[in-house]
Amino acid sequence: MKRNLLLTPGPSKVPVELCEVLGKPIIHHRTPQFQQILKEVFANLKTLIGTSSDVYLLASSGTGAMEAAVGNLINPGDKAITVEYGKFGERWTELVKAYKATPIVLKVAWGRAVTVEEIKKVLADNPDAKAVFLTQCETSTAVTPDLASIGAFMKTTHAALVVDAVSALGTEPIRMDDWGVDVYCSGSHKGLMLPPGVGIVAASAKAIAMISASTNVRFYFDLRKARKALADTDTPFTPAIGIVIALNEAVKMLMADGIDKKQAYYLKMAQAVWAAAEAIGLSVYAQPAFRSRALTAIMIPEALDPKKLVKIMRDTHGITFAGGQGELDGKVVRIAHMGAVDEYDILTGLSCLEKVLKQAGHKFELGASLAAAQKVFNS
Amino acid sequence: MKRNLLLTPGPSKVPVELCEVLGKPIIHHRTPQFQQILKEVFANLKTLIGTSSDVYLLASSGTGAMEAAVGNLINPGDKAITVEYGKFGERWTELVKAYKATPIVLKVAWGRAVTVEEIKKVLADNPDAKAVFLTQCETSTAVTPDLASIGAFMKTTHAALVVDAVSALGTEPIRMDDWGVDVYCSGSHKGLMLPPGVGIVAASAKAIAMISASTNVRFYFDLRKARKALADTDTPFTPAIGIVIALNEAVKMLMADGIDKKQAYYLKMAQAVWAAAEAIGLSVYAQPAFRSRALTAIMIPEALDPKKLVKIMRDTHGITFAGGQGELDGKVVRIAHMGAVDEYDILTGLSCLEKVLKQAGHKFELGASLAAAQKVFNS
Repeated sequence: MKRNLLLTPGPSKVPVELCEVLGKPIIHHRTPQFQQILKEVFANLKTLIGTSSDVYLLASSGTGAMEAAVGNLINPGDKAITVEYGKFGERWTELVKAYKATPIVLKVAWGRAVTVEEIKKVLADNPDAKAVFLTQCETSTAVTPDLASIGAFMKTTHAALVVDAVSALGTEPIRMDDWGVDVYCSGSHKGLMLPPGVGIVAASAKAIAMISASTNVRFYFDLRKARKALADTDTPFTPAIGIVIALNEAVKMLMADGIDKKQAYYLKMAQAVWAAAEAIGLSVYAQPAFRSRALTAIMIPEALDPKKLVKIMRDTHGITFAGGQGELDGKVVRIAHMGAVDEYDILTGLSCLEKVLKQAGHKFELGASLAAAQKVFNS
Repeated sequence: MKRNLLLTPGPSKVPVELCEVLGKPIIHHRTPQFQQILKEVFANLKTLIGTSSDVYLLASSGTGAMEAAVGNLINPGDKAITVEYGKFGERWTELVKAYKATPIVLKVAWGRAVTVEEIKKVLADNPDAKAVFLTQCETSTAVTPDLASIGAFMKTTHAALVVDAVSALGTEPIRMDDWGVDVYCSGSHKGLMLPPGVGIVAASAKAIAMISASTNVRFYFDLRKARKALADTDTPFTPAIGIVIALNEAVKMLMADGIDKKQAYYLKMAQAVWAAAEAIGLSVYAQPAFRSRALTAIMIPEALDPKKLVKIMRDTHGITFAGGQGELDGKVVRIAHMGAVDEYDILTGLSCLEKVLKQAGHKFELGASLAAAQKVFNS
């Protein structure tokens, strides 16, 4: 009878409609029937991402999509700017190093995202950098940069703008072509509300030229192969058929009433969580100008032991938040408001958080976070 | 009302019990609950593979597992023997080339698998080769080598034996440690009767020493990372949670009455299909000494157009066979007897094959293949 509510920022809650799709027998991938699904999902993803460029599907998690970006765009010895404002920004640096290129690491204080001015400066200092790798929604800190402004500047440079949107796609607005993003990487298990197993990569014409020129070792993640297969509405290797079929439905669900409306709803849920945290004497980790609408990291006094709170919520009550990562390990709890999560899920999560906070001795008025959130939801 | 019966050798039929598991909401992967599942699935896979060595799970299709083997074991410039007796053997060669090593290609005529004598000779001619890459069940031709004998010889050499078991695991017998296999690669979507999305790699101590010494570029498929994570019952990157949960159930189902008994049943189904083909004037492509128990490739006279037969069976009757690949394109149809396929599925497939053969003008006695198969099933 215990709940199994995932309020974690990936995997996120899988709605019952998609569970049903995932529970159906699959079909073979080299058939006109599956080709039709691929056609639809490619078209729907292009609309969602705001691009007329190719979108590739990989049988991998989000890191596979990130590796595809690094492995296909830059060569050993190349300079590449990696922007770090959390754990996933650090992954770009690790990947660039793994591919024997030289990362120029732009470290931004945790709690905010990079600004266009900082990007301008690092590129001015490193005019030979081939690409800038950054994160649209930094899941470890719940921040997001002004990607439209950064992209507008990057369009005027020769360098490619590569964006980790693993937790952003579907939730944070994106107009890839208008904004000037060259590679947009994502996965199935965050804003797209499915289990992990599908990586998504969209690549602009500028990126495709770099992909064609790269001499890097690559096979499974070789986007030249993906591009060749795409011409036949195919994937180079066996796709994660079940998740791809469900992905087509997921993207249609997200866009059913207009994606702008949906994303405005995510923002409202985020604002509700920010208000709720403050109403019970907690603070939101991210600086106000950089807060993500996909998830919130809430600071928890060390004495209350955030790890223990998460454990009790999950093991006793069946409601799963995430703890902190890296610098925020043992300092925050994170709650997702992405994908299929709705305001009633948020109230459920807040209610459970209040319960365990109260039991841990935190002083606040019971119900205060619920009332604060409810006011935002209905404003 | 039309059937959706997959008799293709990957993806294969997903049994209803596993569809149910796949249709359940998932849990988060960084929880004691998922760790418990990982513990079980690692232990069960070790039993199934016959190894006390590490087993790693990747969020990828089978090719990802093959790339992990190549990318972690051999270095640029290394010599590696790749054995080709079908399309998937050729993939080993492509992978070794992609990693800038030198493949010594041992070409074996299609229709049979490699022999231990051939392996001995090629290694005698190339004593500096670091590894031998071969295929346990070559899905394009439906052949299997005497892996036990090959492994017994390989044990006496310094070179590693790397086996593509993507369509073999679960169906063909394997005793990895006893036989002397160093890397055993597989996937979720063939003998393990799940959708594609999980790659499996088991690595011996000999292999792990090579993995540690390799200087190759790698990140997502870096088995050093997988090994480090395994020590904490974890995966280095987000696993394909839904499929991993179902994999645990799938392996338990396969071993429920003893895997030897199950594999004897696959052999009986294979023998039934061989007898059935001959009973309607068709022949089995694979030479008798090398026939796989996982699938059969049946030769179809060109005038009957195997591609058209497959299309009609699938689109009109909902029963999916595979056509031919590479040299066998337009020459065979392939039927799987792996995973969840049972004798009644085989009779259904044969019945439909008879129907389309008769309509295409092939001369034979209706029901002859069914009677022949039925005799084998009940012998």
